[in-house]
Amino acid sequence: MKTHCRQNILVAALLSAVAFTTGAAQAAEPLPSWNGGPAKQAIVDFVRVATDAASPQFVPPAERIATFDQDGTLWVEHPIYSQVIYCLDRVAVLAEQKPELKDVEPFKTVLSGNRDAIAKLPMKDLEKILAATLTGMSVEEFNAEVKKWIATARHPRWNRPYTDLTYEPMQEVLHFLRAKGFKTCIVTGGGQDFVRTFAEQTYGIPPEQVVGSMGGTKYGYDKEGRPFLTKNPKLLLNDNYAGKPEGIHLMIGRRPVAAFGNSTGDRQMLEYTKAGGGARLAMIVLHDDAEREYAYGPAQGLPATKVGTFTQALYDEAKKDGWSVISMKRDWKRVFAFEK
Amino acid sequence: MKTHCRQNILVAALLSAVAFTTGAAQAAEPLPSWNGGPAKQAIVDFVRVATDAASPQFVPPAERIATFDQDGTLWVEHPIYSQVIYCLDRVAVLAEQKPELKDVEPFKTVLSGNRDAIAKLPMKDLEKILAATLTGMSVEEFNAEVKKWIATARHPRWNRPYTDLTYEPMQEVLHFLRAKGFKTCIVTGGGQDFVRTFAEQTYGIPPEQVVGSMGGTKYGYDKEGRPFLTKNPKLLLNDNYAGKPEGIHLMIGRRPVAAFGNSTGDRQMLEYTKAGGGARLAMIVLHDDAEREYAYGPAQGLPATKVGTFTQALYDEAKKDGWSVISMKRDWKRVFAFEK
Repeated sequence: MKTHCRQNILVAALLSAVAFTTGAAQAAEPLPSWNGGPAKQAIVDFVRVATDAASPQFVPPAERIATFDQDGTLWVEHPIYSQVIYCLDRVAVLAEQKPELKDVEPFKTVLSGNRDAIAKLPMKDLEKILAATLTGMSVEEFNAEVKKWIATARHPRWNRPYTDLTYEPMQEVLHFLRAKGFKTCIVTGGGQDFVRTFAEQTYGIPPEQVVGSMGGTKYGYDKEGRPFLTKNPKLLLNDNYAGKPEGIHLMIGRRPVAAFGNSTGDRQMLEYTKAGGGARLAMIVLHDDAEREYAYGPAQGLPATKVGTFTQALYDEAKKDGWSVISMKRDWKRVFAFEK
Repeated sequence: MKTHCRQNILVAALLSAVAFTTGAAQAAEPLPSWNGGPAKQAIVDFVRVATDAASPQFVPPAERIATFDQDGTLWVEHPIYSQVIYCLDRVAVLAEQKPELKDVEPFKTVLSGNRDAIAKLPMKDLEKILAATLTGMSVEEFNAEVKKWIATARHPRWNRPYTDLTYEPMQEVLHFLRAKGFKTCIVTGGGQDFVRTFAEQTYGIPPEQVVGSMGGTKYGYDKEGRPFLTKNPKLLLNDNYAGKPEGIHLMIGRRPVAAFGNSTGDRQMLEYTKAGGGARLAMIVLHDDAEREYAYGPAQGLPATKVGTFTQALYDEAKKDGWSVISMKRDWKRVFAFEK
């Protein structure tokens, strides 16, 4: 039994050693879908100094807030933002419920399916479509409708659910940061309630960590006297451009230490994040991979498009202010999990 | 060594037994400042069914959201809300910086120190005071001012910092719920940014879990081109009455499973919380202890006051809808930690 007891100690020591080795291997390779290079190195270096208690740039756990734009940063935004597709799809459902809409603009144009005409609709018509499809129902009804759509809608290029089209390298960044004690938040120009319906399942990000364009709600009671909230068309905050740091302050109340974006709409969030003290990370995804995803800019001579404007001026600001540019083509070994 | 090895096992078993006994003792007495009775029992019973995976009312960890009003629920609100005292105190500081204010109403009245005249100021004058003292500065300047005030201001009755005047039994509820996997949030009619400055240190509640009356901010740059946010007077949401469930949806995005309040301003939050499915807890503090704190209502014949209106109608709704009424006098062994 003496030997047995010692053996147990040896086994325990061996297991510890194995655990240690595995841990070390994981620490050395936390982002397997990333190619080596300055972008990956920037993430690894930031996490090392931010979480090392002996580092002068150490960030206490409570202040480890990392914010991520969604469209074009965490998932595909081309050829058109998925929330816009949701709204257009919903017009057809609404027209079934209220046939009189079929003869009323802008619904008539949407129902015609004429893409050129839809693309030319003026802002006030788009606002009518947003109001009709995103408001006027209870928050529970809205959540149920979006969940149904998310489960059935397919991206035309890959014929897959939109939630399959999240970038695997960015999912790895989310996991890596959370494993190091960061709170990961989405800060999207899209609707806050829209993104909340799938963020937990898709990104592991709970509703209270989703900051987006915010509409109001109105408290009331149903016929049985049960209270509920109705979504109303009052826009409380447009979470784009300067609205992103304003939305972050409103919803989180702390300046992030790390931020990820891909367009001019993320500029102020990246500036605001980078301007704080201690360890800082600002990163911006350049879509330069037409083969595996899309190539658009217009930074670096890439074609300009209606979504995700990464201008040359933004590229220049990134270089000047020390933001890291992520080249999708060069920095990512694979783009989607289904490529495995 | 055989004996030694066995002894180790015995020691380990003994330690486990001790740990188990301690754990059991803690589970039997999680709220030491509470007297036995229906209020304490309601909390213990709720936590048991909400966290028991075999219970039909089990609440998954992600959905364990508990919301707490602040003034009168977590700390003393009499004789006047501390944020109002902050604003009145700030008028004196502002008048030093801008002496011309001394001859302008409503600042002249505030500086006169005439309490009756101050109490009679109309709403539009109060709004001017709020705008002058809570907006027009960067969020960092505001935070620094509030922190300085909180560290030095004293309650006139106890001559102690306001943060000493939190209710020990409610602090125990916050700790107990967090130990059981609940996310504890403040939902206050007070200013969101005001309460955020001390909520983490005082209640262990981080800024992103403080929901309050929300003002806007404006993004801009200082002379050196560094970005910052200025607090502006735009009211985004009055987090009182129906504003409480609306604020909860905006900031948290889930219906709470437990809510605690003390006045008509908390009514809709309590209704909204109680109306969900599964385990639910709605509690309301009745201030009926003039000796240790204050007695006001006007429920149960207590005197009506300007703050914290617990009306008889609210009391009746509590009884009808199964909210638990906490009698400060009967249910709390001690009110403040400094009574220890």
